[in-house]
Amino acid sequence: MISNNPEQWLHLERIVRFGDTDAAGVLHFHHLLRWCHEAWEESLEKYGLNSSDIFPIGFQQQEPFLVALPVVHCEADFRLPIKTGDHLEILLLPEKTGTGGFQVQSKFQRGGGDVGFGLIRHLAINAQTRERCDLPEKIQLWLEASSVNLGPRSL
Amino acid sequence: MISNNPEQWLHLERIVRFGDTDAAGVLHFHHLLRWCHEAWEESLEKYGLNSSDIFPIGFQQQEPFLVALPVVHCEADFRLPIKTGDHLEILLLPEKTGTGGFQVQSKFQRGGGDVGFGLIRHLAINAQTRERCDLPEKIQLWLEASSVNLGPRSL
Amino acid sequence: MISNNPEQWLHLERIVRFGDTDAAGVLHFHHLLRWCHEAWEESLEKYGLNSSDIFPIGFQQQEPFLVALPVVHCEADFRLPIKTGDHLEILLLPEKTGTGGFQVQSKFQRGGGDVGFGLIRHLAINAQTRERCDLPEKIQLWLEASSVNLGPRSL
Amino acid sequence: MISNNPEQWLHLERIVRFGDTDAAGVLHFHHLLRWCHEAWEESLEKYGLNSSDIFPIGFQQQEPFLVALPVVHCEADFRLPIKTGDHLEILLLPEKTGTGGFQVQSKFQRGGGDVGFGLIRHLAINAQTRERCDLPEKIQLWLEASSVNLGPRSL
Repeated sequence: MISNNPEQWLHLERIVRFGDTDAAGVLHFHHLLRWCHEAWEESLEKYGLNSSDIFPIGFQQQEPFLVALPVVHCEADFRLPIKTGDHLEILLLPEKTGTGGFQVQSKFQRGGGDVGFGLIRHLAINAQTRERCDLPEKIQLWLEASSVNLGPRSL
Repeated sequence: MISNNPEQWLHLERIVRFGDTDAAGVLHFHHLLRWCHEAWEESLEKYGLNSSDIFPIGFQQQEPFLVALPVVHCEADFRLPIKTGDHLEILLLPEKTGTGGFQVQSKFQRGGGDVGFGLIRHLAINAQTRERCDLPEKIQLWLEASSVNLGPRSL
Repeated sequence: MISNNPEQWLHLERIVRFGDTDAAGVLHFHHLLRWCHEAWEESLEKYGLNSSDIFPIGFQQQEPFLVALPVVHCEADFRLPIKTGDHLEILLLPEKTGTGGFQVQSKFQRGGGDVGFGLIRHLAINAQTRERCDLPEKIQLWLEASSVNLGPRSL
Repeated sequence: MISNNPEQWLHLERIVRFGDTDAAGVLHFHHLLRWCHEAWEESLEKYGLNSSDIFPIGFQQQEPFLVALPVVHCEADFRLPIKTGDHLEILLLPEKTGTGGFQVQSKFQRGGGDVGFGLIRHLAINAQTRERCDLPEKIQLWLEASSVNLGPRSL
């Protein structure tokens, strides 16, 4: 069931957990990039895709897994301390990046103010040969639907 | 705002993410214990407590942090392979364990069948001296409310 | 190159890192079970096995991956607070557990005193059918070599 | 005991573990940034500093913790698939970034070829007020010693 309102899959929420912090009392940095990837997965799901359409599920895979989407670059900026129990809003901005690539920017807000920012860039490759290939059609549909109605925008 | 229906804070959900798996294609084991702790945190929150009442928030703590609740024991059993995108139900069973201690059992189900089980046991200690002490009153209230209406039960 | 002195692969070391802690200032519990698995991997390697003999390496696997060794149970006890920079000694005690199964106990010490304990139990299964099978021969050799010279012992 | 040969603390090693991978069979991306932070910690230690001089150790801290070094930016590039058991070399390039800041670049190599790259940028802040301040003297010494003998270089 495909949603047609991008707000439903590009505007997510997350609550910070105790294990996300370190002995300085605030978010240990790399968890933010984990959150970015998990937000991307949640976005695909809320848009209407199945995880098994996109992600390999190992040796029990019934059909061969054709296209992998490895991360080729990621980055993050940290603006304000993030603490256990913080309720964060996550705004996603997915974009194509040339043939066979795309990136997802994630802006993290608390009470309307920015606290952090992350970006993950993926490239489509043939899962067997590891040569570059086109994006899977379902990812293309999600990318197009994500820009419809929103017009050009930036985080 | 305190809820009075334990179903609301003892029956949770979780979707498995790609980063929770390993190269065997299924859940990498120790993430299940992370899920147990996060489910406990979510339960306290849904019951009506603030994270800052229970968890230390570091150097900016305005009032001294009095009682820590370190994990003294944990265990987990794995029944069926758990894969990316699986929608899991989590049933929590919190219990007091003598003076100043409690444990939370977590049963993980998929489509009504058990896939895994976890348990975390905590002890209350004075955060400065690290000597054993009574459970914080708010944890006691959550433990009592968690057994009300449910009667004795087991996972 | 197979070592024949179990001390070389059953007596390991680990230094605690900042990201292993949480806002209470000490080890966040589930990392200890990650350490147990990593210590097991290091032990196999120091004994003389290749990771690719034991662990799946994904879609580029040249020969089919035959036997998976999923974790079916794990547990841990926490005795003393563990902090960033602590130098820990890890003593491993591997044992067969019936046909097609084994477990590895890990005792963590600091300055000769116990600070924590972990246990991981594995079962051998056919990677395609997921039915129980015999342990891979190389794991059996490591298990036998791990008990030679040591005699019966306990952690 | 302070070392005076930067090769000893800027040239490290790491073996990839099974739990670092995901169901695509290779490194799950964000662990590389964990490795970067852990490599920085190892570098400080091999240079001759104590963790407790640099990192907070929680409520039992005997002297007040004065200067925190939060991560303000991080990024990573992924060049080749990284698998369980890979032996990686890590080359560190620490640099001051204006007053009160520094960054550490980490190049990951396997068999002499580049497989990945990471960067973490820190800012010194007063741990109580969270206002910017000078770098701790010990970090300054490590930064200076890290550039001595090496001359200007780049990864």
